[in-house]
Amino acid sequence: MADVHPSTAPHLAAAVHGVVTRIRAAAPLVHSITNYVVMNTTANALLALGASPAMVHALEEVEDFTSISSALVVNIGTLSPLWVTAMQRAAVRANERGIPWVLDPVGAGATAYRTDTARALLALRPTILRGNASEILAVAGEAGGTKGVDSTAGSDAALDAATRVAQQHQCTVVITGAVDIATDGARVVHCGNGHPLMPRVTGLGCSLSALTGACLAVETDALHAAAAALAIAGTAGEVAAERAKGPGTLQLEMLDALYQLTPAEFAAKARLW
Amino acid sequence: MADVHPSTAPHLAAAVHGVVTRIRAAAPLVHSITNYVVMNTTANALLALGASPAMVHALEEVEDFTSISSALVVNIGTLSPLWVTAMQRAAVRANERGIPWVLDPVGAGATAYRTDTARALLALRPTILRGNASEILAVAGEAGGTKGVDSTAGSDAALDAATRVAQQHQCTVVITGAVDIATDGARVVHCGNGHPLMPRVTGLGCSLSALTGACLAVETDALHAAAAALAIAGTAGEVAAERAKGPGTLQLEMLDALYQLTPAEFAAKARLW
Amino acid sequence: MADVHPSTAPHLAAAVHGVVTRIRAAAPLVHSITNYVVMNTTANALLALGASPAMVHALEEVEDFTSISSALVVNIGTLSPLWVTAMQRAAVRANERGIPWVLDPVGAGATAYRTDTARALLALRPTILRGNASEILAVAGEAGGTKGVDSTAGSDAALDAATRVAQQHQCTVVITGAVDIATDGARVVHCGNGHPLMPRVTGLGCSLSALTGACLAVETDALHAAAAALAIAGTAGEVAAERAKGPGTLQLEMLDALYQLTPAEFAAKARLW
Repeated sequence: MADVHPSTAPHLAAAVHGVVTRIRAAAPLVHSITNYVVMNTTANALLALGASPAMVHALEEVEDFTSISSALVVNIGTLSPLWVTAMQRAAVRANERGIPWVLDPVGAGATAYRTDTARALLALRPTILRGNASEILAVAGEAGGTKGVDSTAGSDAALDAATRVAQQHQCTVVITGAVDIATDGARVVHCGNGHPLMPRVTGLGCSLSALTGACLAVETDALHAAAAALAIAGTAGEVAAERAKGPGTLQLEMLDALYQLTPAEFAAKARLW
Repeated sequence: MADVHPSTAPHLAAAVHGVVTRIRAAAPLVHSITNYVVMNTTANALLALGASPAMVHALEEVEDFTSISSALVVNIGTLSPLWVTAMQRAAVRANERGIPWVLDPVGAGATAYRTDTARALLALRPTILRGNASEILAVAGEAGGTKGVDSTAGSDAALDAATRVAQQHQCTVVITGAVDIATDGARVVHCGNGHPLMPRVTGLGCSLSALTGACLAVETDALHAAAAALAIAGTAGEVAAERAKGPGTLQLEMLDALYQLTPAEFAAKARLW
Repeated sequence: MADVHPSTAPHLAAAVHGVVTRIRAAAPLVHSITNYVVMNTTANALLALGASPAMVHALEEVEDFTSISSALVVNIGTLSPLWVTAMQRAAVRANERGIPWVLDPVGAGATAYRTDTARALLALRPTILRGNASEILAVAGEAGGTKGVDSTAGSDAALDAATRVAQQHQCTVVITGAVDIATDGARVVHCGNGHPLMPRVTGLGCSLSALTGACLAVETDALHAAAAALAIAGTAGEVAAERAKGPGTLQLEMLDALYQLTPAEFAAKARLW
């Protein structure tokens, strides 16, 4: 996390500034079909940044709800068959309506069911796929090192796989780790924001995916949306870590930071290259 | 939120005082069938005030559990068919046993399934119906302005609908907004407590509905129970907002305030007219 | 909670020290099938102490996931039939693979469904059964005083039942209360750690069960694992209560304490006899 990277390019800083500004002006409705563990915290992260979250999963209404949303986030953390069907229907509807969507393949590689489900959802062509290195490798069909839902693989090892996935599925792939990487198959952006205490709070990766949905709702360049989300979440984590004594207070301080920081502050603190 | 309202009438201040005193003495069991997003935070709000929460939804036990509870709270935030059946059976049992119950029609108006479910539950005659203006208008069968699960309609526009619903279904209707309104179809009470930061925390409306259940468990005049809950939640939010830097700390400070404030402090801070 | 107990025996202090040290070194994967209310807070408690939590319940993967875990925790707080089947299959798999598991019979005694389910799971022979006095009495087949999901029975009254259950099912039984008791049917350990504010936060009993799973993952003597978990959770609660103004801040401070305290500090603060 030391300053071993180039300065943030002006166009990426501008992207962060613009994304935060537009989220706060538009309060985009972000439809989340996510796991039980993080529903509360991801809703709060979206609200704190300025978006409008809604968790809706019933087959009786899921497509109707996607249709009125500005972005969709699908997270398989506590998947089960009915929920997977809801995720698939919502994704299809999102595609039909040109609504961008994010796939978070939590724990892909840990079980066959989880890997198969992640791949079936990837085949529906999410706008952004966001996971740790193990998950991205598993979804890409390569041996990973998933331990439960946490990654043990290096993010460098996953960039090749991410590039192939991005090209094959025409999506943007985000690999989170000590240094985050996002690629649309042609361009690559790295993000150095974040703090080592963050993985000690459950669901911050899920919150990043949710915030990525909010960024996609207001930014048509998916790589820029992904980079903005990485910088926003990582910056909030850094500011929170300065104030926190441990993971309990970190979680709360992150929500406060997402709420308090101005677009200019997010842009100034972004470490994107 | 400025002081543009009459002083709180002595009988309403007395109701707040009595409700808090009795909740803390009796620790009433409040059976909640609510949404995944807020289960933790509403349980904590009930515990902080002094009630005893329980979340139970299986068809195999839901009626048994309602039977031993002092109040029931039904919240359709993340509804699905089995859960709706559980809500309906619990509501029928509550009515059979004379146990008061609260209906929170989260997101009514956003999808047909949500609106239809809310209306079917309203037909089972809750003691109190609590929603924002859009939700109350949707349940009443009028065009609202629901955006996802947040309200865009004015609460004034909803008072007429609320009055009709209250009269038709012999219940008390609460419309929350910048100024909250409660009516039993004859009497009307306004509440000016609250703080603009509160909507930036997910589920505070759901927590209000849960606290309304606790108040109903110890207060047979449903309008007074509704008014007390509005004043209690709003006062806790005001005290918390003075201490909080953002929505993250607000949520925690609210729980502390619900726990710390005395019946006399809640009564003194109430702004009811 | 006054010092009315003997000093902690050296072997118990050593057990606490060793358990914390090993959890932090190994980050054991703890598979939790638990209730919606506490999923987030128990995941955070496990992460704060140093374990690696995962919540997985789908029948399509639950056994696969148990197989790769170091411990399993089963908590029936918001049970329903499919989840109960998942719990049973995971427990059977854990037994087949020699993976230790914890049963938390939340609310046993409150409804027949809950009591029957808890007994059916107990028949699958958990390594540790952890509940309050009412729950243990209900599972043991004796009249308890369950009020909702909170205990009204004294823990002394439950020790006899716990000893019989421990002997009959060859497991360790933990009864939590003002003074906690653990027995394997032969030995008995008491724990005096904890603070009266803790029951005002939802799910701290569930967090204790989760932490017990983490301790079992690194300690083959189940009674020592149970004692260590009691001392760890109680100590974190004591440290947090010194810093907290109410239940809201207590919850966060507990996570910080679980993260901050060293093995030596946990061992020194343990009150086990």
